[in-house]
Amino acid sequence: MANYAKINIGSEGRVELHDKLALTGAEISVNRLPAGAGVPFVHAHKNNEEIYGVLEGKGKAVLDGEEIALTAGDWLRVAPATKRRFSASANEGITFVCIQTRENSLEGFTAADAIMC
Amino acid sequence: MANYAKINIGSEGRVELHDKLALTGAEISVNRLPAGAGVPFVHAHKNNEEIYGVLEGKGKAVLDGEEIALTAGDWLRVAPATKRRFSASANEGITFVCIQTRENSLEGFTAADAIMC
Repeated sequence: MANYAKINIGSEGRVELHDKLALTGAEISVNRLPAGAGVPFVHAHKNNEEIYGVLEGKGKAVLDGEEIALTAGDWLRVAPATKRRFSASANEGITFVCIQTRENSLEGFTAADAIMC
Repeated sequence: MANYAKINIGSEGRVELHDKLALTGAEISVNRLPAGAGVPFVHAHKNNEEIYGVLEGKGKAVLDGEEIALTAGDWLRVAPATKRRFSASANEGITFVCIQTRENSLEGFTAADAIMC
């Protein structure tokens, strides 16, 4: 496999990176919802933990029926079985990254996995 | 484990999310380098793939000695053995997210792992 891959995601409404970058440990999407819009379904996962990071704007998550206000700088871990739905606020859009990884798949990291060159 | 965890990362120079959110499939850091600054070392990894996403600003990556210009919207997969170093540009800072996952750990994802509720 190549030592690296790089793309620029531009300004699309949703970009999925797994296939574009040949990722092997995560699926990552960058999502833009305009004001008043929401993901049109509620979903959970079998094996994958999701991490959401709000890059711009405002919105809300509904997690197992609990409503959580979202603003830029918020990051969330969502357990696989949690029922989730994300929306932009009524008067402001939201841009968020969603990172999907297999629960309990990470072993050593940072100092434990790094090699200083 | 709780069904979700949430923090706001504020404006710190570097925030590591693994411990703050009890992540089990990734370490994620959000990094801000001011103009002219760089990560002060070159490193590689034993087992972990890294994905970098440039959220704001400009800078460069040096990957196995190859210099790559970076700008907002760029996303990169960096293979474990690749020697890497990231810097801001001389006259503009850079904000980037770094996602560390175990190489080849992802199995099914999105439609293959989702449960519609």
